[in-house]
Amino acid sequence: MAGFCEYISNNKESRGMETIAIESIKIKRICHGHIADADDQLAVEEPMEIQVAYDSETGYLKKNISVTMCTPGNNEELAAGFLFTEGIIKSRNEIKSIKQSSAGSNAVLITLNEYARPHLQNTARNFYTTSGCGICGKASIDAVKTVSVFSYERDDTKLNAGLFCRLPAELRKQQAMFESTGGLHASALFDFTGNFILLREDVGRHNALDKVIGNAFMNNTLPLNNTVLLLSGRASFELLQKSSMAGIKIVAAMGAPSSLAVELARENNITLIGFLKKDGFNIYSGKERIIV
Amino acid sequence: MAGFCEYISNNKESRGMETIAIESIKIKRICHGHIADADDQLAVEEPMEIQVAYDSETGYLKKNISVTMCTPGNNEELAAGFLFTEGIIKSRNEIKSIKQSSAGSNAVLITLNEYARPHLQNTARNFYTTSGCGICGKASIDAVKTVSVFSYERDDTKLNAGLFCRLPAELRKQQAMFESTGGLHASALFDFTGNFILLREDVGRHNALDKVIGNAFMNNTLPLNNTVLLLSGRASFELLQKSSMAGIKIVAAMGAPSSLAVELARENNITLIGFLKKDGFNIYSGKERIIV
Repeated sequence: MAGFCEYISNNKESRGMETIAIESIKIKRICHGHIADADDQLAVEEPMEIQVAYDSETGYLKKNISVTMCTPGNNEELAAGFLFTEGIIKSRNEIKSIKQSSAGSNAVLITLNEYARPHLQNTARNFYTTSGCGICGKASIDAVKTVSVFSYERDDTKLNAGLFCRLPAELRKQQAMFESTGGLHASALFDFTGNFILLREDVGRHNALDKVIGNAFMNNTLPLNNTVLLLSGRASFELLQKSSMAGIKIVAAMGAPSSLAVELARENNITLIGFLKKDGFNIYSGKERIIV
Repeated sequence: MAGFCEYISNNKESRGMETIAIESIKIKRICHGHIADADDQLAVEEPMEIQVAYDSETGYLKKNISVTMCTPGNNEELAAGFLFTEGIIKSRNEIKSIKQSSAGSNAVLITLNEYARPHLQNTARNFYTTSGCGICGKASIDAVKTVSVFSYERDDTKLNAGLFCRLPAELRKQQAMFESTGGLHASALFDFTGNFILLREDVGRHNALDKVIGNAFMNNTLPLNNTVLLLSGRASFELLQKSSMAGIKIVAAMGAPSSLAVELARENNITLIGFLKKDGFNIYSGKERIIV
């Protein structure tokens, strides 16, 4: 766990797939009012494309089936499992070969043989297991910067660390109505003095955030550059992408951020806090806005 | 929280949107070796379609943009927020009207006015924020039953409750490699005596399960009808859909199940356990396979 207080510096070893599934970074850690440099490990999040091709004898063309945001490792299993669980292929015997794409793109190509009877009409739905923007993280980040209507210039916002530490208790209070299920993600807005503004909950964390931003959009209160966004769980690339679209500059997550979430926050000058608890938190990006 | 031991029966009140976002059901609760009837509340999960239409003066046709699995409530905000955060529209002024569809389907139609300049080329990607099968839960469930290659007949599998209570500790042991990030979901298989078989982890919970099932698919060990699937977090419809495709009959989640996950489990005769901890758990479906 990257919990901020119990943190123990690990000796890094090369342990196979761990070297690609985990990314080490330097962060600031705030604990009981003190700030310190720290090492942290992030779960790597990357777009991966699943491609299907028929045997060349059949003459069918290659088809891109899905782009999913995932953690590298066992990519062939992921591609084969996806085709099976989505009902596109039914038997191992339908597969002629599975191979990782060549360097430069992150894709797995499954070639089917002449016995295959793939249900590709299912993919008229064009599965995209995320709304992420493309086949490489960098492209996605660039796409967000292109379409966002708000700029990400430097600003002189300064917030006390103590303000953030009070937010989890406030969130729990506001979530009382849904406490009974234990099964909902929350996104909430607070002003810069820590006053609660709005909360939305959903089984999908991206939906909870879309509801919060949709409320502001409909009420003409965008950009949300004078608010703190609190996330009840982890911070993925998709949540940082949506935040940046709304001009949010400060995102605090009670769970862990992914590698691509941190990368996007740093590119867009968003302050990103993770593992937020009542006695401290990690700062992954934009530490200049936090006063200890 | 629907935590099994601290459970307190609430007086049900009609509190606005809660009545549609939360579903009450009867379950069995196992605590310290005893089984009892209990009431439980589930977060409702439903497919919702987001549709966009231009003003009739322009002559453009209606377009289905996205189907997302979500919790009912603030659906107009969700639709508007989605269109904005995905870069399809940029201003409130582009919207002429937003309305819930008529009864029978779960959809929100956003009509754009003549000033709108929607970036619908973005939707050449055909966002589907889930790979769920359709516009209503019932249709999704039927679709799964149609394409699954394994049958869901009754069987005489019986497992001791104590076996499940040992699985969380075993999962933590197997997850040691990734413990450093705190940001990964896990899916793991165990045999009917509780022996560990396989673990996969990913930032996306559906990817972790696709990797587990993909491994079995490639090794010709499907159906997985003699294994217990352990999920490190919540159980959504999508995870139960994938489990049923692989012929898995027993799913144990350490978090909460959604309403649609429970519905699918009951339809397909899958034993579904939630809130699994070392001293107990909830049984949402298929209690006849559990011996207390």
